[in-house]
Amino acid sequence: MLVCPANCGTGQQKFNLQGDNPQGRRKIMTLPQRPNAEYPVNPNSSGLSKDWVVGFVDGEGCFHVAINKNPQTKFGYQIIPEFVLVQHKRDINLLYRLRTFFGCGVVRKNKEERYCLRIIKLENLLNVVVPFFEMHPLKSKKNVDFKKFAYVVKLMSEGKHLTLEGFNEISKMASEMNRKVDRIKIESTPCKNTGI
Amino acid sequence: MLVCPANCGTGQQKFNLQGDNPQGRRKIMTLPQRPNAEYPVNPNSSGLSKDWVVGFVDGEGCFHVAINKNPQTKFGYQIIPEFVLVQHKRDINLLYRLRTFFGCGVVRKNKEERYCLRIIKLENLLNVVVPFFEMHPLKSKKNVDFKKFAYVVKLMSEGKHLTLEGFNEISKMASEMNRKVDRIKIESTPCKNTGI
Repeated sequence: MLVCPANCGTGQQKFNLQGDNPQGRRKIMTLPQRPNAEYPVNPNSSGLSKDWVVGFVDGEGCFHVAINKNPQTKFGYQIIPEFVLVQHKRDINLLYRLRTFFGCGVVRKNKEERYCLRIIKLENLLNVVVPFFEMHPLKSKKNVDFKKFAYVVKLMSEGKHLTLEGFNEISKMASEMNRKVDRIKIESTPCKNTGI
Repeated sequence: MLVCPANCGTGQQKFNLQGDNPQGRRKIMTLPQRPNAEYPVNPNSSGLSKDWVVGFVDGEGCFHVAINKNPQTKFGYQIIPEFVLVQHKRDINLLYRLRTFFGCGVVRKNKEERYCLRIIKLENLLNVVVPFFEMHPLKSKKNVDFKKFAYVVKLMSEGKHLTLEGFNEISKMASEMNRKVDRIKIESTPCKNTGI
């Protein structure tokens, strides 16, 4: 069971992804919970305080919503919200400590001598990252990006990215965020058979 | 009177700069204390916690020792230790809050759309910045640079930069730090009259 490092009380919250279906009824899927074996979920074992993490993320963190071409998705684009922290390899240990703090994410090579902690699973963003920074707000203007990011994550958790209106709303948010993403506006739902 | 934000008990410490003199006796100068009129010295009024500041500096801070040519100094070079935080202009307010937190420093334009908080006065570095980060250590490898920086500040506060050995020691430290500085080694004390 995921536990939010902020003890936000969201640790036992179930994560529901609402997909659309042709009958117009909501289809509720419960995602499997991530096993704890890999990540100790006691954030105290990281040796990092909540305030330190907020300060560090104010300096180095990035909340990003990528929109990548993917013909296998409904609108031809895949929306990928991600929380990323990049460090020089000499501080890879700090990235592992941050992974321990959040209890999720993957540390991997970024480019050249840089490594990153990347939290990309919607489940983890919704239940861990977003509640933490809602309870412990960033002090820099990065908080504006975070609020847009949180909005996108919540829309996606409700399956809104699968509707025309929701997709365009998310695309608008993404285009306004820190690392500029070109705004993609879909005019109508494509027909799978004709590709239109 | 300067007050260390970490309440290190150094707030009332006097700052002594020991210069050399031809008779070989130590000359003790007491530097004037900075008036408080400009900077509120209650760090709580910044709204920043100590841990947040440490985290932010782990991400964004820079401890730097510049060695610039200056023919008016004893060895022809001026040593300038500085603590710098750079932010995009949208976060200039955060720099002012950090200045309030430390109770010293100057916020000014850096380049293009970036601004910086710069603490350069040896008095402030010795009595405020160094004690704060000694009491609240950085968690990244930046702490290695900080320790060298603190060593340089202490050597300078004892006037060691005015001796051949001290100058070369500081130059060695500076060349090993984050932003690489070419190591300058002085072989002998120049004679003012001949310029040798």
